[in-house]
Amino acid sequence: MTEARPIPVTVLGLGAMGRALATALLDGGHPTTVWNRTPGRDTQLVDAGAKSAATADAAVASASLVVVCLLDHASVRAVVDPLAETLRGRTVVNLTSTTPNEARETAEWAHRHGIAYLDGGIMAVPEMIGQPEATILYSGDETAFTEHRPALDLFGSAEHLGADPGLGALYDFALLAAMYVMFAGVFHGTAMLRPAGVSATEFANRVVPWLTAMLQTVPAQAATVDSGDYSTEVQDLDFTKAALDAIVRASSEAGAELDVIAPIQSLVYRQVMAGHGAEAFQRMVETLAPAPARV
Amino acid sequence: MTEARPIPVTVLGLGAMGRALATALLDGGHPTTVWNRTPGRDTQLVDAGAKSAATADAAVASASLVVVCLLDHASVRAVVDPLAETLRGRTVVNLTSTTPNEARETAEWAHRHGIAYLDGGIMAVPEMIGQPEATILYSGDETAFTEHRPALDLFGSAEHLGADPGLGALYDFALLAAMYVMFAGVFHGTAMLRPAGVSATEFANRVVPWLTAMLQTVPAQAATVDSGDYSTEVQDLDFTKAALDAIVRASSEAGAELDVIAPIQSLVYRQVMAGHGAEAFQRMVETLAPAPARV
Ligand SMILES: NC(=O)c1ccc[n+]([C@@H]2O[C@H](COP(=O)([O-])OP(=O)(O)OC[C@H]3O[C@@H](n4cnc5c(N)ncnc54)[C@H](OP(=O)(O)O)[C@@H]3O)[C@@H](O)[C@H]2O)c1
Ligand SMILES: NC(=O)c1ccc[n+]([C@@H]2O[C@H](COP(=O)([O-])OP(=O)(O)OC[C@H]3O[C@@H](n4cnc5c(N)ncnc54)[C@H](OP(=O)(O)O)[C@@H]3O)[C@@H](O)[C@H]2O)c1
Repeated sequence: MTEARPIPVTVLGLGAMGRALATALLDGGHPTTVWNRTPGRDTQLVDAGAKSAATADAAVASASLVVVCLLDHASVRAVVDPLAETLRGRTVVNLTSTTPNEARETAEWAHRHGIAYLDGGIMAVPEMIGQPEATILYSGDETAFTEHRPALDLFGSAEHLGADPGLGALYDFALLAAMYVMFAGVFHGTAMLRPAGVSATEFANRVVPWLTAMLQTVPAQAATVDSGDYSTEVQDLDFTKAALDAIVRASSEAGAELDVIAPIQSLVYRQVMAGHGAEAFQRMVETLAPAPARV
Repeated sequence: MTEARPIPVTVLGLGAMGRALATALLDGGHPTTVWNRTPGRDTQLVDAGAKSAATADAAVASASLVVVCLLDHASVRAVVDPLAETLRGRTVVNLTSTTPNEARETAEWAHRHGIAYLDGGIMAVPEMIGQPEATILYSGDETAFTEHRPALDLFGSAEHLGADPGLGALYDFALLAAMYVMFAGVFHGTAMLRPAGVSATEFANRVVPWLTAMLQTVPAQAATVDSGDYSTEVQDLDFTKAALDAIVRASSEAGAELDVIAPIQSLVYRQVMAGHGAEAFQRMVETLAPAPARV
């Protein structure tokens, strides 16, 4: 088997992320055309071999694969809507962060115009692009994903999650949500120790290995959630309520605000008040979203 | 140098944790006396060589080191207050979970009665006792810690955090708070994906490596907090506000309740509304607890 020659690719949007993506394509040997609303952002890319296009329409005319990385959903639609006819028959890979419903809307628009559409969520900062640690979660047209895999693999670890074009964004936001909540938890712990003169760094030295170890319990917790069977011998909601009561009391005694921890306590209370005190604390998930009806 | 012979130790409280502690002492060769309010909990320990005491007073009379592991602060005081005279000159290591102020209160009581006092927070479940993964955070009388280190090392990795007897409990609660908040973040992500038919297990497979990687950014974030210099080129509060707006929108579109994520968004808004939009998002710590005045 011979390796296919790298295909021409166009990148729309040369912010920090768009520039990183274009650089990865150039490094991978793809003839790369670039465009940005504000001119002048492509100097280094052109030096590295990119072709600069004067208009978005001219840019997309020269490639069968078009990578879009703009600010948000509104800017994507502002740029691509007028290009519908030129894009017909080509593939659009939208790596702009949008909500799942926005991704689904753009996918429908693409479908109406005969454009193959893949949506992707980038789980990385621009400096990580090109490394396997940069995971990009795709969903939507699976044929397009398979066909353009060689180019997409240049950005990082590419994974296709399903045909629903909103799925990549949904995972993206779910992971980001978990990250911000985790950081807020670390900030709360930092705030509890602060008045006692313990530095954020001293706490970081202990909280990082502690949370890393505690993350290992997540798969077993997930199995409990998936089973729907919350009977338990350990860590029931009554125990968790007592633990959170004590944590909230200790937080308040320490002079930390309760903005982050009180809502967690309140979630536990809701489950206990609904009569589930003897069940596993993972039942908190049920307050946040009911299980979908089984078909 | 010869190894000192293991000293006699008494354990008050034979719940799941007290039994694990007594077992570790017996395994380490310490003559061990045990007592529990409700009789009959010591059968296996006695079979393993422990001496059963009929009263708490008789139990503490036979050892210079007394380990207390009861339900909570109230049960500790109910048990140890009447023993003050017998305990004079001995060391009490209280491994019951209490708040920092409760630990400080018991330490004062001990001081008044000539009892050396160490307070400890157990960062482990009973099954982990005796393994290095079981960290126990001590604070209070450092001489007692050094003297009884051989016995304390049998429980797991012993660390002394400082003379303030509340410090161990403070760390304990700060770590537990961070853990529960992190789990709630995972539950939120799980809830976002649930209506799309993604199982908790599928999400766990992605969220565990993701959060493990994101934890690696915590030490650098802590350095930012400690420096008090929140100027930044990346991830400022305006960016974080936009990210949380999108996450909240995506959560709500997905049908997930906002109990966990909305309070985090609100924290970010408070910092942005106070005029700090261009500063690093770690500034959220300042809302939770002001930095202590530098001396
Ligand atoms: N940077 C990261 O760490 C990171 C990580 C994961 C995902 N992402 C996502 O990747 C996307 C791009 O991020 P970035 O860091 O590259 O952002 P950025 O540096 O702010 O760049 C934004 C880009 O969008 C363009 N743009 C904005 N509004 C436009 C409009 N109405 N019409 C045409 N172009 C418009 C800008 O063009 P001008 O130059 O003309 O303003 C610029 O090229 C975002 O959705 C972001 O959420 C970024
Ligand atoms: N288990 C864990 O995973 C874990 C982890 C870290 C820290 N801890 C902490 O360790 C401590 C003990 O936990 P555990 O799991 O052993 O709890 P447990 O199994 O519920 O045992 C509680 C013990 O406290 C005694 N007790 C309760 N009230 C009393 C009173 N008024 N007077 C005398 N004794 C009383 C009980 O005696 P009776 O038998 O007479 O009721 C029993 O021995 C708690 O503070 C807990 O937070 C536990």
